[in-house]
This record gives sequence, structure tokens and C-alpha cells, in this order.
Amino acid sequence: MASIPTYEDVAAAAGRLLGHAHRTPVLRSSTADSRLGAQLHFKCENFQRMGAFKFRGAYNALSRFSAGQRRGGVLAFSSGNHAQAIALSARLLQMPAAILMPLDAPASKVEATIGYGAEVIQYDRYTQDREALAERLASERGMTLIPPYDHPDVIAGQGTAAKELFEEVGELDALFVCLGGGGLLGGSALAARALSPRCKVYGVEPEAGNDGQQSLRLGRIVDIATPRTIADGAQTQHLGKFTFEIIRRDVDDILTASDEQLVEAMRFFAERMKMIVEPTGCLSFAAACHAGLQLRGKRVGILVSGGNVDLKRFAALAG
Amino acid sequence: MASIPTYEDVAAAAGRLLGHAHRTPVLRSSTADSRLGAQLHFKCENFQRMGAFKFRGAYNALSRFSAGQRRGGVLAFSSGNHAQAIALSARLLQMPAAILMPLDAPASKVEATIGYGAEVIQYDRYTQDREALAERLASERGMTLIPPYDHPDVIAGQGTAAKELFEEVGELDALFVCLGGGGLLGGSALAARALSPRCKVYGVEPEAGNDGQQSLRLGRIVDIATPRTIADGAQTQHLGKFTFEIIRRDVDDILTASDEQLVEAMRFFAERMKMIVEPTGCLSFAAACHAGLQLRGKRVGILVSGGNVDLKRFAALAG
Repeated sequence: MASIPTYEDVAAAAGRLLGHAHRTPVLRSSTADSRLGAQLHFKCENFQRMGAFKFRGAYNALSRFSAGQRRGGVLAFSSGNHAQAIALSARLLQMPAAILMPLDAPASKVEATIGYGAEVIQYDRYTQDREALAERLASERGMTLIPPYDHPDVIAGQGTAAKELFEEVGELDALFVCLGGGGLLGGSALAARALSPRCKVYGVEPEAGNDGQQSLRLGRIVDIATPRTIADGAQTQHLGKFTFEIIRRDVDDILTASDEQLVEAMRFFAERMKMIVEPTGCLSFAAACHAGLQLRGKRVGILVSGGNVDLKRFAALAG
Repeated sequence: MASIPTYEDVAAAAGRLLGHAHRTPVLRSSTADSRLGAQLHFKCENFQRMGAFKFRGAYNALSRFSAGQRRGGVLAFSSGNHAQAIALSARLLQMPAAILMPLDAPASKVEATIGYGAEVIQYDRYTQDREALAERLASERGMTLIPPYDHPDVIAGQGTAAKELFEEVGELDALFVCLGGGGLLGGSALAARALSPRCKVYGVEPEAGNDGQQSLRLGRIVDIATPRTIADGAQTQHLGKFTFEIIRRDVDDILTASDEQLVEAMRFFAERMKMIVEPTGCLSFAAACHAGLQLRGKRVGILVSGGNVDLKRFAALAG
């Protein structure tokens, strides 16, 4: 029986990722600093391999497969970035991969997944239960299912981004992390508790789908309908059992950001920091700007989760 | 009388920039590597303060002003990035700044320059001689003129980007640098000769304005009409006397890239590397892809010079 991952699992994942994942840069912006009166450190996972932090968790999970599992290959379901992450990791580790993707996933993500050599199976995210479908397919084909967030090796892998951030800039007063299913937030919280114990850790969800916020307040996992938001990487319906346990223990609060605030952040990243960030990747900075927390004089980490957005869509949103 | 800067001047400039300029990241791309069969190291000056390498040269030059010069302030002429660089450096060093900018400079660059607190004076780059106009204004107002490229302190400052690149990744087989007036190319060549003596150094100009290429081949500075190209940072009419001397001595060849190739590179940077690069900043990578050099198996540096492009224009070109 798998158990909740610890910081030691994050550290072990970092060892497995060495030479495979990019050590992404931490960027600064004087404009952002003066706007918030704080010292902001942007950990840029949009520059990670395949364009998002998801590579970390996927590669960590697949690199722990037994020889038999490698022969059978991996099956995954994902709104996008986890798909590409599994596809790329499977190719690097030379195993077959099949990915369940929603019909309305961004075209760039579907194409990139196929480009990495995976088989893509599409489904309707508004009517079909992807988890049940994935379990059935995995069992039929003898593949190992790696879920997008609720898996100890995935959570541990995602935590390596925050680990690198703390190692590079030292302790922080606050860390903002986007929240879909909680893999990145859970892993980041493990890293924060070990490396910067007094750091406040905030998860940030789209306003349209605040199941994590409700779950934290009610003390149980709350399930919602698939939220309609531009943050397509955070359209999850509920936290996982592992991620919820870490979040309730190690996360200070969960905030939300509106689609309008995401667009504003996206434009800021493009105009002032010259980088392309997908809507989900804008959640953390949007909340730092708008959630009403007192950050003046504080040292703040902003986890920028990914940059996988169709260029035409990016142009329409930010241009 | 000023003399041609040396690598010692680059090293001294690096000391002055410490804590003021960003040490920009060096990014990698597996896709770019496999496309060229080479190992590419992208030095990302689009993430530099004010969005381009020009901050390095401007800050270095202004930090060497005497007390009297600081009181009088600085005057500059620029198609854009040098303007912002001088304006920001003047603000940081608390001196007045006036900037001559062409009427057709990108709106984002004009606004940013005014935003940094400088006075902007506009002129017609197709009919007026900006150098004569600048000299007259500087003398009337008691300001010190800092030209955009042909100044030892500017060249030395620009060389710090390549210095950081070599220090981070070690020696390279080839380095590609965009070429307008030659400040960045000259400074980069000084760094390459000192830190990676066998590295081939290539300047890259827009196809529409290959005055540098002609100058290198004829052994004298060739003057051309202002070229019409999307690479607005490389619309120079001739090299400077300092930059030409360094280039003829230390640069291996000068290549060109078409506007179409720049757009292709711009799209690659956006889609695969999640970053916004202005057309001029795409020259180096475009030539590495298309100039027909044999780079297979080589370690290659790509200097990405800046990211200051109107978002609407970026969307129209790359979207």
C-alpha cells in the first residue's frame, strides 16, 4: 500500500531527475517588485522540458517502474500537460504510452503528445468519467496507470521545483502555487516545510472551481462539476486522497483568481517579463497581486507552472 | 582620446554591473538540438532589465560619468532599446536623460522610455541625420552624448553577456550574435577571444541591410540607406570606428537572415521555448538554422538579444 510521500521522497526524486529535467531559472522583475512592494522570485517551469513542471512527476514515476511494468508501458489521463509529460518520459525511458485526453484539450497539447510518440485516445470530459475509463483500459492492455496528481511518485517529483527554488534563493516568507489536483501544491508544501519551515504556502485555484478551498475549509474532499475556466490545467473536480492529506496538513490557505485576473497576469508576463505563460500558470501571480494578502517587504516565491498555450489563443487573450 | 576596449574593460564592466544587471539564464531546447544535431546554449538577454542587453552597455557607460557629467545628464539617440537602457540607467544613477527616438519606433519602446522618466524627442529616421542632431542638442544643453554602440564603455558593457555565457557553459565551437552597429558583437568577440579562443564568432545582420558584411569583405566601413526590415534594432546604416576595428580583427564572418527566417525563429521561440523574442533578437538563431554552416556535433552559443516587441505586433507576426 502506497503512503503519503515525504520530503525524503522529493530529495530522492531530485536525484533521479538530475540530467533529465532542466533546472529552470528563477527570474526577477523590478516592475513586479515595485507593484507589490515585495521581493518576488519567479520559478519558471514554463521553461521546463515539454513546457511544464509535469515532466518532473511523470519522469520520477516512470523511472521507478519494474522491468515488467516497462514492457507493458504506461497509461495516463490528462487535460494536457501530464499527457505530454508521460509521453516524453515514456519515450526517454523506452516504453509504450497511451494517453486519454479530453476532446476539448488545446490542439497544441494533443499534437505535442502525438509528436512524442504516444497513442492518444480522446473522450468527452463533460460526460465521461475519465478515471473509470482509464482503469478499464489499463487493465485490458496490461499497462500501468499513472494518474496526473494523486500518486506518491508524481507528488514527490513535482516537489523538486520548489526544492530548487529554496536552494537557489533561500528561505521565503510566502510561496504561491497553482492548484488543480494538488500534485504541484502538495510536493511544494513538502519542500517548503523541510527547507523554509516558516514560509506560508498558498494554493491558488480558478474562481470557477474552488473545490480545494471548500475541501480545506470543510475538512473533507469536495467534488464539483468540471469548472469552465481558461485555466485548463486546473479544471479538476476534486483533490486526491494523498494530495488532500498533505494540503490539509502543510498548506496555509487556498485562494482563487478570476479568468480576468489570469489574463492580466498573462499580459504582464508577456510584456514585462518576455515570457509565455499558460492561463493555469498565471494563477499564482494573479493571487499574489489580487488576493489581498499583505506582502509588503516580504520575500515571495511565485511558481509559474507552464507555458503550453496555443499561440493563436495566447495572441487572442494577451495581444 | 578613447581607445579600442579590451577584455579587461569587459571584466571591469562586469564588476560595475554586479547587483544592477540581471545575470540572465542560459536555456536549452532538445527540439533545437535535434533539429541542428548540435548542442545549443541560448543566452537570454530578453530577460535582462528593460528587456534587452542594452542595459549592460548603458549602465556601464553612465556609471563612469564624472560628478559634473552626472549633473548635466545624458543624451542618447536610439531606435529603441538603447533609449530604454539609457533612461533606466540614468534613473538608477539619478541623472537627467533626453532621448532622440525615430518617429516609427515601436510604441512600446517609446512608452517604456518615457515611463523610465526620460524626455523623448522624436525625429524622422528616413530624412534627418540623428548623429548631427544629437551632437547639436548635447552641446546646447550641456549633456553628455552616449551613442548606441560606438563607445568603448558601451562595447565593454555589452561584452559581459557573452562573458557570463562562457563562464556558465565553458568553451564553445561557435557563437552567433546579432549585428546592428556592432556593440554586442564587438563586446562578445572580446569575451570570446579571452575565454574561448578557438570559438568561431559570427555576426548576423538582416538581409536587407548587410553593411557589416560588405564592410568586413571590403576592409572599410560601408554606409547604406536605412534598411527596411522587421529587425528594427538592426536598422543601422554603418558600423562604428571602434566596433569595425574589433569586428575585422576578432569576428570570423558576418551572415544574414531574411525577415521570413526571423518570423520562423520568433515562432519557434514562442512555441517551443515559451519566450518572446523581438525580431532583432531572432537574427542569431535564424542564421544558425539557415546560413548553411556545418554545426553537427558542435557546442554552439546563441545570443538572444532582446524581447521588446509590441504584443499586438508579436501576435501578428508569430500568432
